[in-house]
Order: sequence, then structure tokens, then C-alpha cells
Amino acid sequence: MNIRSNPDTTLPAVTTGPLPSSRKIFAAPEAAPDLRVPLREIILSEGAGEPNLPVYDTSGPYTDPSVTIDVNSGLPRNRLAWVRERGGVEEYQGREIKPEDNGNVGASHAAKAFTAHHKPLRGLDGHKITQLEFARAGIITREMIYVAERENLGRKQQLERAEAALADGESFGAEVPAFITPEFVRSEIARGRAIIPSNINHAELEPMIIGRNFLTKINANIGNSAVTSSVEEEVDKMVWAIRWGADTVMDLSTGRNIHTTREWILRNSPVPIGTVPIYQALEKCDGDPVKLTWELYKDTLIEQCEQGVDYFTIHAGVRLPYIHLTANRVTGIVSRGGSIMAKWCLAHHKESFLYTHFDEICDLMRKYDVSFSLGDGLRPGSIADANDRAQFAELETLGELTKIAWEKGCQVMIEGPGHVPMHKIKINMDKQLKECGEAPFYTLGPLTTDIAPGYDHITSGIGAAMIGWFGCAMLCYVTPKEHLGLPDRNDVKTGVITYKIAAHAADLAKGHPAAQLRDDALSRARFDFRWQDQFNLGLDPDTACKFHDETLPKEAHKVAHFCSMCGPKFCSMKITQDVRDYAATLNDKEQGMAKMSAKFKEMGESVYLDADVVKESNRVL
Amino acid sequence: MNIRSNPDTTLPAVTTGPLPSSRKIFAAPEAAPDLRVPLREIILSEGAGEPNLPVYDTSGPYTDPSVTIDVNSGLPRNRLAWVRERGGVEEYQGREIKPEDNGNVGASHAAKAFTAHHKPLRGLDGHKITQLEFARAGIITREMIYVAERENLGRKQQLERAEAALADGESFGAEVPAFITPEFVRSEIARGRAIIPSNINHAELEPMIIGRNFLTKINANIGNSAVTSSVEEEVDKMVWAIRWGADTVMDLSTGRNIHTTREWILRNSPVPIGTVPIYQALEKCDGDPVKLTWELYKDTLIEQCEQGVDYFTIHAGVRLPYIHLTANRVTGIVSRGGSIMAKWCLAHHKESFLYTHFDEICDLMRKYDVSFSLGDGLRPGSIADANDRAQFAELETLGELTKIAWEKGCQVMIEGPGHVPMHKIKINMDKQLKECGEAPFYTLGPLTTDIAPGYDHITSGIGAAMIGWFGCAMLCYVTPKEHLGLPDRNDVKTGVITYKIAAHAADLAKGHPAAQLRDDALSRARFDFRWQDQFNLGLDPDTACKFHDETLPKEAHKVAHFCSMCGPKFCSMKITQDVRDYAATLNDKEQGMAKMSAKFKEMGESVYLDADVVKESNRVL
Repeated sequence: MNIRSNPDTTLPAVTTGPLPSSRKIFAAPEAAPDLRVPLREIILSEGAGEPNLPVYDTSGPYTDPSVTIDVNSGLPRNRLAWVRERGGVEEYQGREIKPEDNGNVGASHAAKAFTAHHKPLRGLDGHKITQLEFARAGIITREMIYVAERENLGRKQQLERAEAALADGESFGAEVPAFITPEFVRSEIARGRAIIPSNINHAELEPMIIGRNFLTKINANIGNSAVTSSVEEEVDKMVWAIRWGADTVMDLSTGRNIHTTREWILRNSPVPIGTVPIYQALEKCDGDPVKLTWELYKDTLIEQCEQGVDYFTIHAGVRLPYIHLTANRVTGIVSRGGSIMAKWCLAHHKESFLYTHFDEICDLMRKYDVSFSLGDGLRPGSIADANDRAQFAELETLGELTKIAWEKGCQVMIEGPGHVPMHKIKINMDKQLKECGEAPFYTLGPLTTDIAPGYDHITSGIGAAMIGWFGCAMLCYVTPKEHLGLPDRNDVKTGVITYKIAAHAADLAKGHPAAQLRDDALSRARFDFRWQDQFNLGLDPDTACKFHDETLPKEAHKVAHFCSMCGPKFCSMKITQDVRDYAATLNDKEQGMAKMSAKFKEMGESVYLDADVVKESNRVL
Repeated sequence: MNIRSNPDTTLPAVTTGPLPSSRKIFAAPEAAPDLRVPLREIILSEGAGEPNLPVYDTSGPYTDPSVTIDVNSGLPRNRLAWVRERGGVEEYQGREIKPEDNGNVGASHAAKAFTAHHKPLRGLDGHKITQLEFARAGIITREMIYVAERENLGRKQQLERAEAALADGESFGAEVPAFITPEFVRSEIARGRAIIPSNINHAELEPMIIGRNFLTKINANIGNSAVTSSVEEEVDKMVWAIRWGADTVMDLSTGRNIHTTREWILRNSPVPIGTVPIYQALEKCDGDPVKLTWELYKDTLIEQCEQGVDYFTIHAGVRLPYIHLTANRVTGIVSRGGSIMAKWCLAHHKESFLYTHFDEICDLMRKYDVSFSLGDGLRPGSIADANDRAQFAELETLGELTKIAWEKGCQVMIEGPGHVPMHKIKINMDKQLKECGEAPFYTLGPLTTDIAPGYDHITSGIGAAMIGWFGCAMLCYVTPKEHLGLPDRNDVKTGVITYKIAAHAADLAKGHPAAQLRDDALSRARFDFRWQDQFNLGLDPDTACKFHDETLPKEAHKVAHFCSMCGPKFCSMKITQDVRDYAATLNDKEQGMAKMSAKFKEMGESVYLDADVVKESNRVL
């Protein structure tokens, strides 16, 4: 791992280089062999006796030593050609950047602008633009081929039978096929059950898919605030988050330099970027929700559509009639976007302009294929408020809006809570599937208790794993700093790793046909005392190795056939060879059984039991 | 918090002093007003507008500023009088400590002996000794009165109705009453559904109860190994673990000084101490499992019974006929005790002496009221091996042994896995309840994936929360160092806090009538921007405060009505007051509605909806 410093030290320094014992490989899908779909291959030690393990790779070119990273230029814009070749789009001048886009920041506090400027594209009337429109028309896009290949984790179709046998999960109605084909991707998108967030102006994107019949995804939130942090830190956090496995990143910046920060992030991001446009709109009217207007909001949407934001959180379900339902809550309205809209609705005593202008929002977002992430502005902020009428009333409205957005040709996912005790989690998932026609669910945790500030990555990791199992398509991470402050680099990593755990535990429990391959490879390494392989197959090789070295720091101990728990004199795992030798004897009908039978008689009881009759044997003592 | 250094620096230094903004209080049970049952009262800030919150307190006298701690003398032995007053016991000389009890350690490496010596007690034939025997005879012991008071968390009986209303959990057959009475404790023990691990020789004990109809408990493992750590560190870890909430502690020491380490821990521990006696037995025969004998093992049991160990892990379910069932596992036998016994069985080609001598073991343990923790020596060590025949065959045998131990008058709990994907967790719980007649289940995690070494507190915290919800009575913690090394002080704290989260999330989901009181108090503090109260009500006030200060370090910010997420200009939580004012207007039939009705007509639609009709209203747009 190298920390690259750009020659110009005012520019963001980001982490590059491969993960330990890993190399980037590229798969070429049959349907489009010119596509280069990235995977990370974890290289096992010599003598491992099994092949290297390919795993999903969100890290983009940053972990490819053959690519020279220059954040000043941004990543290669490979996807531009895909969009252009489909046609139906026009390049145009685009909206001019105004001082208020960056909170009217003065020259002394202005962040350095991103130098390269790309004219935006937009869809032409009467043409298909969105992945949903193509999917419905039976057209398989390059994005669909790309994500199909990516979801298979480097497996080949002929392996599907063997792997499907591993998959004994409980899927609660999800139907993850043994092997993902581009046609399956198309069909899932066509019925609204999955989305590929992919603004036509985010040409740096490596497409990914969000849906309950695909690998469970995770999102990392970054963003500066009025109080703290800088553009440099946020770009670095984005690169850091995807290094450890964030599938999408939301830029939740507020305050000054908001446009510039987002531009730096987008031009350097291979993963979809989501935003909450109302945050920027609010900055444009002095932070006073009452001054918000539809025109101002619409202008902000256009600004962000042209930049290439892949999905927008839009709190259009916070309707005036629901607001009073939160009055008796322990924690009222905790969503920032939700409370902005509540304030506006109350002040004007009017229905939300997001709700009344929803058709126009759809028409606008469709032109750029920006996906909806319908926000849960009335999500519970405490265990006490979980699953209340305010929350569910909004969810019902999100279901209604989903159908409108689908009719307009837009891709949609739905945001969910929040704070929910374990026994109320499944109700959330079931209701979301029902109300929103199986549109992908995207939840924040949920936190399963309120009593551990400083550890909310864990309180929420529990809920995230469970709701992922039940069918949630993407899990928004929560960091240790939740409720206390803004996450720094370490918090981002802790949040991402915790949520990779939750997402993977969910995939295992759902019975994803390839999920267990990594668990098994790691467990075999563990059992064989291949320490380096165990570290490298884990989600965080650096930390695993560091922890091992704290107890047994010598290099020799990394090849030692013991660990610090039992020490060198005795080792439980070594006894297994004895067991295997013994079992082989028992199973060798010709030789072994003959040899053993004398002993059996001697003991006066059967010492060999079939697995099936163990229970019965226990009855006779 | 003070770190006490003893005048003699060769003695363990332990952490004393109350937790932030907390004081130790004592409840006097009606049935025995002379008992002093400890609680921790979290003192809220002035103007909080609500009473201080009493919480369960495992920390013993170490957090009581009125007690002078001297680890050299040990804690007060208050429970001695309780045991003596019941009668049926005799004091006797006890077994002499032999050099092999401490691994024949030489003078240069010998740890300082604990100075005070207490002659052991043992039960007399024909007398009731164990809590189970008293319970069955309809006798309520002082231990039972003590734990009943403790479980109520300082609540008074008259509050039960209001609190029961909070409890809307799914208990899966558990029946936690609204208020715990000594008689309820007795009845649960009598039917084997709960235990009070309480060796008559552990006079320093503050009794606690383990059972599915009580608060979910957690255990912390400590212990030195042949490779690393010292007596001093282990005593410190014990005090540190109970400070953060460990309900019991297991001393898993191996190697030298094993007897002396345990003596220091027992004499200074207010929580039950568990051990795995086969570990010490193995040290007595040069670490060679083949050399183990029943006599050697029995001698070790007596040694530890006399010292006051409260529960023994005994792997009597690892029977010869099951061992071959592990041969094709990915990770074979991973339990240290299990593999020791497997090795012995194979080497001698004999049934396990723990199984064949189980009656004698019961008779011995009964005399001291040492509880069984029937070990799961064949637990799975990987996702691949979960719920296999080897594991379940052993569990069936543990059920059979449970009934034998109950007949003998012994208290019993059952150990469980290990590594189990989420969809296979409930099967474990259900099978354990069925096979073992509802004896308390005590599981290690389980880990829900194998792919995150360095984060196994989290992979297992997910499984622990779930199995706790399903009915597991005690959760054995897993630290970040699992699979990699021995936990240090920081790891112990991280493990304990993670498992307090899991246990509390389980209590909430089960519908424990008092669990949500703490969540609600903390959520109210959060909503009111009572930062210090929010920190202090959390499981780890120090970390919460530190995290807050990293972003907003100034003292003034701790009373600020904003946080670093939204900044001072805008705050989502402040909007709630507007909402409440609005709702009040709507609800004020006389005044408000009249005033509002003009507006309603103006808008041409109803803006006030009953919670019940929201769904219907959504159909008409």
C-alpha cells in the first residue's frame, strides 16, 4: 500500500496500490469481450493446494499498479462511449456554476476547482435513456453485461451445480440464481427489482447492481459539514471507503464548497455517487428551510444531474398530513432531509413541493438516468419510535411514488430505517416489499438498541445483517462516530468492514451460491495454519496480521503450526489428523474393519455409529 | 476512574472508582432486608426532568469509593455466613497444594502466592447443598432473594403494569414476568431452567442467575497461556471485564502458575468464575492427552472445588463413537477440551472417562454446588461445519447427561457453538431446548461468517444477539483477537461492550419489561441535546465522550443545542418543537381546529389524518 502524494500538495493525496497478496484481474464477458470487468484475485501461498480466490472488487483503478493515478485529471471516462453508442443523447452547454453553488464562499476559503470540464449529456425526448427503459424494451446494455459478469465473482457457468449444492440458505422469497446472466440482470431491472445507478454523465463509473437477487451491497457516507473537514479529506475518504469494499458512496456535504467537493469526488469515483440534493438547496437559501422553493430545488437537481450524481435521496414521502404523527415520538423527526421538508410544510401550511412536483422530478431525472433513492424522512430515531404510524404512512407513500417513477421510466430504490429492535425488523422488510412492489430496499442499519453511542457500527451491524438476510438490497453503513461526530478515515474503514461482514453474513444466510467459497477458503487456511493466507483471505489483512503479531511477533511464528491460544506443546487442530486416520480405518471395509472388530468385541459395544443412528443409540446407554 | 497501584508493586494493580456520573446504591430485598444488592445509579444532569436511572451492576466493590480495595487480602467473604447458616456443610483440611498444580514451576518463575488461606467447606451426606436441591424442597435461599432483587433493576413492584406495556417483544416461548420474585427464581431453578453458579467456597460472590426468563448474561474469558501473559494481567483483566459488564468470567489459563492465578482471581472476584478443569489436568501430565487418567482429573476437580470455582466446563459428550463423524469436516475438532478428549479416546480406543465416570463427577460437584457447563467439544469451527451430525450427536448426549446431573441434584447449563450462519442459528436454540429440557444455553457467539479475522467480536456479536433473542441465557464473548492471539485489556473491553450490546438487543427483542427504559432515557437525552447524559447512559461513557470531543472538543459544545452533523445553523431535532406546536393546534378542538379550518378549505383537502386511516388516504391522490 502506497500513500501517493501528488506533486501539487494542495491536491488530495489518496491511497493506491493493491491489497496484501492481491492482484487486479479482469474478466471479459462472453457477450462483450471488450469489456474489462475487474476482480481482485487473492493469491494464496505456495503449497496451499488450492487455487487463488477471486473476489468482488470495488476499489477501481486505485489498486491497479499499471494505472497512474492523477486525481487532478480524474479517472478515465470509459463509459462515455457506451452512452454515446446507444444514441438518444445530446451534448449541451450545461448550467453555469454560480457562486451560491459553493455557498458563496469567499476567495480565501474557496477550494481549488477541478480543472477538467466535461460538457454534460442529456437524453433527447422520445428516446430510451434509462436502464429501466432499455430493460423493458428487451435491450441488454453494456452496463447489464458488466454487472452480470461482476456478480459471478469470477466463476464459470459450468461450476454452478457444485456451488448451488453449497447454498442451503433461507432466502425468504429471494431467488438468486446459480449463475447470473445478462438476461437475468435485464429481467430484474425491467420488473423494478434491481437498479444500476448510472447517470449518463458519470463516465468514470464501473457499473454495479442493487437488488435482492444479487450480492448484498453497502454504502459509505462521506461529506464535509459546516463545522469540519475539507475537500481533500473527502476525496481521500471516498478512495479509502472503496478500497475496503464500499459499493456506493454518498456525498452528504453541507456548507461551503459543496459543488467543488462533489466534482472532485465524481471525477475520481468508480462507484455510484449518491447525494441528498435538498442539502445543497438549503445552502442556497441561507440554511432557512422556509425559503426553499421548487425552482431553487429544481435548479439544484439540474446542477447535480449534469455533474453525474447517480442517485438522489428525495424525501417526497414527507407529506404535510403525516407530520403531526411524529409529535408524540421520543425523538421526533431525525432525518435531516425529513425535518427540512417538515419545517417547510408547516411554515407554508402546504403539501410538500417534492410531492406535488414529483412528476416533474421524474421527467428531469429520467433524462440523465439518475436513480431515485426515495428517502425515509420520517424514519424512527430511537427504539421507542420504531414501526410507528408516521414511519409506515411515509412508506406507503413511497410505494405510491415508486409506481409513478416506474411509469416515467426511472429506476427506484427505497430508503429504510434507522432504529429498530430485532423483533420488528422483518416487518419493515415485508412491508417494504409489499408496498413498493419489490423495488430494492436500502436501509440505514437498523440500530437494534440505543444504549451504545460509540459502538453504533455494532448495534446497527446486527440489524443490517438481519435485514440483509430478509431481503434488503443495500446496507448504508453506520460508523462508530454515529450520533457523536463526523467519521474520520479510521471510522470510515471500521464502518465499511463492519458492513461488509453484515452483507456477507446476509449472503450466506440467503444461500447465495458463491458466498461460502471465501469462508471455506479462509477456514481451510486457518485449519492448515497457513497464517498469511488466513490474513489475506480476510476482509482486513492488515489488522489481522497486526493482531497476530501483537502476541507472536516473530516471522517464524507465521509459519508455525500452532497459535498463541494453545501454544506449541498442544494443538487441537493437529489432533484431526489422528481422527482422519482413525475414520479411514473404520471406513476401509476390507482391512480396517477387520482389524478393528477384535477391539469392538473386546469393548462389548459398538464404537462405530452411522451418522443417522446416533440419536437412537443415545437412547440405549 | 483511578488506577490503584498497590504499595507492593509485585501485586496486581486494578482499576477502581465509579463509572462517570454513577454511584453505587444498594437495594434491600423485602424478604431479607439485611442483604445489600448492588445497583449502579446513573446520575442525570440537573434539569433532565426525569429521575436517575438504576442499572444492573456487575462491578463489585471495585466501583464503591467507600471500600478500600486490597487485592492481597481479597474481597470480603460475606457469603460464608449464608452457607454456614443453612448447615449441612463441614470445614475440613482440604487437599494440599502440590508442585504440579502450578505446572512444577521453578522458584524463579513462580508467581507470588495468595497469602490468606481459607479452609474449604464441603457438603455432608444426606444434606441439601445445591441451589437446585433447596429449590426443589421449596426453600428460598438468600442467593435466590438476592438475584430476584438484582434482576428487577431497582424497579418496584407497583410499576410492573406500566412497564409491561412497553414490552412488545417476541419471546419464542420465554416467559419473563413483569416483576421477578424470589419464588419465581426458586421455581425456575427447581425445574432446571435457571442456575445460580455459586460454589459454597466462593464466599466473595455476589450471586447472579442464568436462565432464559431472566436478563441475558455475558461471560468474558481471560487466562494466561504457555506463551504469554502473567498473573497480574489476569487479575486486572477480571476486574476490568466486570467493570464493563461481564456477568461471569472464565479463567482459561494454561501453562505454569495455573493454581496460583486462579486463587488470585477467585479471592478477588464478585462474579462466578468458570474453568475447564481438563486444561489443568493436562498440565499435570506434561501436556500429553494420552497420559490423562480419571484419577488425575478427579484430583483436579477436587482442587478446584475447594478453591471455589463456580462452574466447570466438562466435555463429557465427546464420546468415542462420535469422533469419526468429524473426519470430513473443514475444521475438524476446534474445541481444545474436545480435542484433548478425542485424542485420549482414540489413543486408548476407549469411551471417554468423563462419560463413564459422569455419576462420580456429579456426586463430587454436588458437594460444593459447582454447576455443570456441559461443554460442546465437537462444536463447529467454521461455517462449513455448522449443525452437522457430530455437533448434534454430542448435543443429544448433553441432554442425556443433563438429566443425570439433575437427578444427582446438580445445576446444569449447556455450551453451544461457535460458527453458525444466521439461517442455522435458531435450529441450534430449538434443538438445545428440546434435547436438554430447557436447561440454560450458553453459546460462544456464534460467528456468522469466517471471513473477518480481527473483527470476530462483530461477526459473532450478530449471532449472539440473535441466539440471545431466541432464548440463549448467556453469551460467551469473542474479542477482536479471536483466532489471532490472546486478548489484552483493550480487547477485553471491546468484547464485553459488544456482548452487552448483543445481550441488551436480545432483551429488547424478547420483550424484557425493563430493557427499554435505558434506551428511552438515552434517546430522550439525545433528543434534548443533553450530551453528558447521553454519554453517561451509554455502555461506554468514556469512548462516547472522546469521540464527541474529536469533532467538537470545546466544553461549551457539550451543552450546545447542535451537533457536528448538521452544525449550529440548522438542526433537525429542533424542528420537532414546531411539529409539537402544530399538532397541539390540530388537537385543540376548541381553538386550533377552528383557526385551521379556513386553511383546510383553502387547500381543498384534508391535512389532518388519523393514524388509522393514513393507508386509506394514500389510495386517493
